[in-house]
Amino acid sequence: MKLPTFSDVESAHQKIKSHIHRTPVLTNHQVDERAGGRIFFKCENFQKVGAFKFRGACNAVFSLPDEQAANGVATHSSGNHAQAIALAAKIKGIPAHIVMPENAPEVKKKAVKGYGADITFSESTQEGRESTLAEVVKRTGATFIHPYNDARIIAGQGTATIELLDAYPDLDIILTPVGGGGLLSGTAIAAHGISKKVNVIGCEPEIANDAWRSFRSGKLQPVERIDTVADGLRTSLGELSFACITQYVDDIVTVSEEQIIEAMRFIWERMNIIIEASCAVPVAALFHDKVNAKNKNVAVIITGGNVDLDHLPWN
Amino acid sequence: MKLPTFSDVESAHQKIKSHIHRTPVLTNHQVDERAGGRIFFKCENFQKVGAFKFRGACNAVFSLPDEQAANGVATHSSGNHAQAIALAAKIKGIPAHIVMPENAPEVKKKAVKGYGADITFSESTQEGRESTLAEVVKRTGATFIHPYNDARIIAGQGTATIELLDAYPDLDIILTPVGGGGLLSGTAIAAHGISKKVNVIGCEPEIANDAWRSFRSGKLQPVERIDTVADGLRTSLGELSFACITQYVDDIVTVSEEQIIEAMRFIWERMNIIIEASCAVPVAALFHDKVNAKNKNVAVIITGGNVDLDHLPWN
Repeated sequence: MKLPTFSDVESAHQKIKSHIHRTPVLTNHQVDERAGGRIFFKCENFQKVGAFKFRGACNAVFSLPDEQAANGVATHSSGNHAQAIALAAKIKGIPAHIVMPENAPEVKKKAVKGYGADITFSESTQEGRESTLAEVVKRTGATFIHPYNDARIIAGQGTATIELLDAYPDLDIILTPVGGGGLLSGTAIAAHGISKKVNVIGCEPEIANDAWRSFRSGKLQPVERIDTVADGLRTSLGELSFACITQYVDDIVTVSEEQIIEAMRFIWERMNIIIEASCAVPVAALFHDKVNAKNKNVAVIITGGNVDLDHLPWN
Repeated sequence: MKLPTFSDVESAHQKIKSHIHRTPVLTNHQVDERAGGRIFFKCENFQKVGAFKFRGACNAVFSLPDEQAANGVATHSSGNHAQAIALAAKIKGIPAHIVMPENAPEVKKKAVKGYGADITFSESTQEGRESTLAEVVKRTGATFIHPYNDARIIAGQGTATIELLDAYPDLDIILTPVGGGGLLSGTAIAAHGISKKVNVIGCEPEIANDAWRSFRSGKLQPVERIDTVADGLRTSLGELSFACITQYVDDIVTVSEEQIIEAMRFIWERMNIIIEASCAVPVAALFHDKVNAKNKNVAVIITGGNVDLDHLPWN
């Protein structure tokens, strides 16, 4: 299996930088005090579509040869990846075909439509989505872009780390949450290519610890429970992301549901930014000594702010 | 009455810039589409203590002659100004005496204590606060710093606009909420000193429209109702801020409570930033054509993110 390289991340950076936001890095002394180190938040919740996913989607779409791109791109997702693909295709001026389960939240359907994408509804099962996607691809000739098990996506997600280490070359540790593993893979490849000293650590909910088990055992293991509050992390690693993580990632640590919710609220209250539960996972790891930040410079990639304001986890 | 000048704002900028965050400016295409112009959010909700108030407090504290400063500073407040004075005094290494009503929320008492300030509790009436403050000042020799009716405070609040126009010299309009009027005054003085073309407009809740009535009538009029959801705007203009506003501000517009709450939620959902209801007031003015943003470059000063997550206004 050919893994994406640092040079792929650099190419992605050049390809997408005029289309994405160079997101700000925020700091907060109350977070520093609690974590015992200097913590830098790379705010991808302020990225276009509200999540880092736009980086990978943009790189994948802009990597297609023109004649292939003309037939459009397709994916199945009800989350940020769908919006990211839709917006990237809109900017490129090609069709986007998004397969969504009929019962997807209205607000998500609206967002994808708002970017001009064509939505095809499917049954909500994995099989239903995949068979509907296969039909769409067959009918349109569009290129399927997987949300994380794709070298172009992984390289795109790594571009946040190029920006981070450009602004803060002296980082000791970079933390990301790990769900499908695309962000963690890209981050580790980029960090490894730039800095000799930085460690990259993935952070995962205890009750959805497939990456932790896979990393420890050296064998890809599927997620068993998908009821973690960190709904962005309910997916399992793919083969490609697992291979990248095995090669480049330094460690994976886990935190409890209670720790995730408490860390999420702490960040909302002290930093005035809306972060989804998924990106509270690395913050919880810092607050509960799963990662030793003592006197270190630690960056956390804040992945997104996709939250239902009518159902906050502390209510 | 001697009004603060642009030169006072410039001095404040030099005095405080190493102590404050140069806050980021965020943009969002969904906001732009809805407002019909290009909207730039100056994110003072990411300022130290979570609000622009730290600028004014910092300038006031660092403007004191050393022998006067040694006796400390004092104020009565249960809000951001108290935290701002406490932190500024801590940085300067002098005592801060904060008078708070006994029934102030526990979290606010804790925050002020966390900055090392000395808290004296008072009755919750205006008279109770003022008489307790007078006793504290008499006992300690501390200098009272008013939250907005103070030239040093006004000059400090204006420094956000120096940063704004330095980064975006082509702004057509700057919007701020107006409560006591310190931010609006400082913004207008700074904008007037830098740009020939920029208009500064204050935005106020309809049901707490003392600034609107005062501006229109040319006579200082107190606020009558203090039940607006925009709790930071329940205060009336002071004499000094009214004089600044009369001289430098181009207009004041008002919006309804429903418009404020809807704009606040829109910003939370689309921009992933936590803004308090007060700073949704200018956003509501843009969304409801109280300000004509058509094809214009409009900045909004996001004042802070002081929100009780257990009591959100849309619940």
